Amino acid sequence: MQHLTIVTTGGTIDKIYFDDKSQFQIGDPQIGEILTTLGVDFTFEVVPVMRKDSLHMDDQDRALIREAIVRQAHRHVLVTHGTDTMVETALVLKDLPGKIIVLTGALNPAAFQGSDAVFNIGCAVGAAQALPDGVYIAMNGRIWDPARVRKNRDANRFEDGGA
Amino acid sequence: MQHLTIVTTGGTIDKIYFDDKSQFQIGDPQIGEILTTLGVDFTFEVVPVMRKDSLHMDDQDRALIREAIVRQAHRHVLVTHGTDTMVETALVLKDLPGKIIVLTGALNPAAFQGSDAVFNIGCAVGAAQALPDGVYIAMNGRIWDPARVRKNRDANRFEDGGA
Amino acid sequence: MQHLTIVTTGGTIDKIYFDDKSQFQIGDPQIGEILTTLGVDFTFEVVPVMRKDSLHMDDQDRALIREAIVRQAHRHVLVTHGTDTMVETALVLKDLPGKIIVLTGALNPAAFQGSDAVFNIGCAVGAAQALPDGVYIAMNGRIWDPARVRKNRDANRFEDGGA
Amino acid sequence: MQHLTIVTTGGTIDKIYFDDKSQFQIGDPQIGEILTTLGVDFTFEVVPVMRKDSLHMDDQDRALIREAIVRQAHRHVLVTHGTDTMVETALVLKDLPGKIIVLTGALNPAAFQGSDAVFNIGCAVGAAQALPDGVYIAMNGRIWDPARVRKNRDANRFEDGGA
Repeated sequence: MQHLTIVTTGGTIDKIYFDDKSQFQIGDPQIGEILTTLGVDFTFEVVPVMRKDSLHMDDQDRALIREAIVRQAHRHVLVTHGTDTMVETALVLKDLPGKIIVLTGALNPAAFQGSDAVFNIGCAVGAAQALPDGVYIAMNGRIWDPARVRKNRDANRFEDGGA
Repeated sequence: MQHLTIVTTGGTIDKIYFDDKSQFQIGDPQIGEILTTLGVDFTFEVVPVMRKDSLHMDDQDRALIREAIVRQAHRHVLVTHGTDTMVETALVLKDLPGKIIVLTGALNPAAFQGSDAVFNIGCAVGAAQALPDGVYIAMNGRIWDPARVRKNRDANRFEDGGA
Repeated sequence: MQHLTIVTTGGTIDKIYFDDKSQFQIGDPQIGEILTTLGVDFTFEVVPVMRKDSLHMDDQDRALIREAIVRQAHRHVLVTHGTDTMVETALVLKDLPGKIIVLTGALNPAAFQGSDAVFNIGCAVGAAQALPDGVYIAMNGRIWDPARVRKNRDANRFEDGGA
Repeated sequence: MQHLTIVTTGGTIDKIYFDDKSQFQIGDPQIGEILTTLGVDFTFEVVPVMRKDSLHMDDQDRALIREAIVRQAHRHVLVTHGTDTMVETALVLKDLPGKIIVLTGALNPAAFQGSDAVFNIGCAVGAAQALPDGVYIAMNGRIWDPARVRKNRDANRFEDGGA
């Protein structure tokens, strides 16, 4: 993998804290700075498409994400996304030809001590180089077929499942 | 990947600081606690084989690591290793049948803020699930064939190269 | 200072992230674990009085905090508190005799990388040992007389001011 | 306290890791960046005097540190110092008139997760504003008279003691 296209859509991974509102909001995409600091040996560019909590995404949002990916010239695409509807978006991207698309995100904001963000990005980056064309989800240390995974909201983790 | 066998050999990733000696020493393997905290959705066991700076490893050490891996029942094996001779050890493991072996480590101790350890482990874990049988190195965000990578010590990073 | 009584009331310092609600909530007091990990050379006990965002505190809440402090046997008292009305609470505690009371908190949750929580607790702990009886606020690296400080909400910091 | 003069001398607090030498070395003083990031409400300047492990300091080094402090115009002085001979240096600074001097350092490098560095700096900063003229040591959450404290090297902590 010489180049990685990164499409950001918001989600917990990018949430930061604004004291004056006493709540989280989605801030700038964190992934570019993370990969730069880590000194990865591939080039990448960050394409910010939206900043949404994935609970608030609708079909039009998913169409926008799909179009943004279609427009990219490169084969390897990492998508950062909220966890609540990551599976739905992955299914919408399923039949894009000539692409290896890995969606990932975080159960805790990247700005938190002990966040899973950096580990999840690592899983997605490592898998993207080894997988055949298709769409995948990298969460909880596993690389999932979107048709066979679900987020267990009570346990706050991804597990085997699906429609 | 239902199960991951983790073989630890020492290296920078496990270095901690002992004030009374004013220097780093290799401490307990960090990876088990890291994966437990992250809540990965696979089982794993940690097999500590040695605690060596990889500059101090010799042929006998590499034979020991090889034997330890041969004895494991599972197919997916992650090896944490010092970076200076990670490539040499990978080459010794090259012809083990029926195994997907990924070596990784860190350029900065896992205990450091901003260490590459968690990201590298993520890359190795993600790639292990997608790769065919063989031996690989996960460093600097890339999954390398051990025959085509070298550590550039001056730049303190892995890059295309090899014998 | 042989012993420090710690009264916790909530505030940003103790905020954590609940993914299922996509927002912060006030969690368990963080300060006890922080001081234990740091290995401080004094004994302390944590007295949790409430878990409130200080914007939601009223006169009755402040009376409760005051009573909780009056009941403590020890002279040195550290109060963790939300920043928005920390000054108001400090003024309510002003005339308690025989006590050195230092209020502190955080502009970013203690669980965040780069949070000011640990530094602020340090300032409060260091000052408590050196100050005469009275009530003080430890924020932004300064030890303030509550009558002469205000929180500048736009700049999100404490500065000289007051009624 | 409107202004804080910070004299840095090295020690564990500033130790960083150089992979090519597989050991710690003393790097740039960390305290300036720490205080800037925290947004403290006082001005400060950093005066780097030396970069020594305090085990390697001799009488001449301590004379240099003393001279550097005498030359400073401001009353509040924080000295970052290795822990092993922090007490000896404090005793050499004992009779400087018109100064509040607080020495601090860290048992673990500031670059480490969970380091005591930021907390110790907080203690020193908070105490400096409340103490009368004199020389003090801020370690393990206590503000010590240098004549009544010693580092217990086996337990790796400061405790009541002294000559």
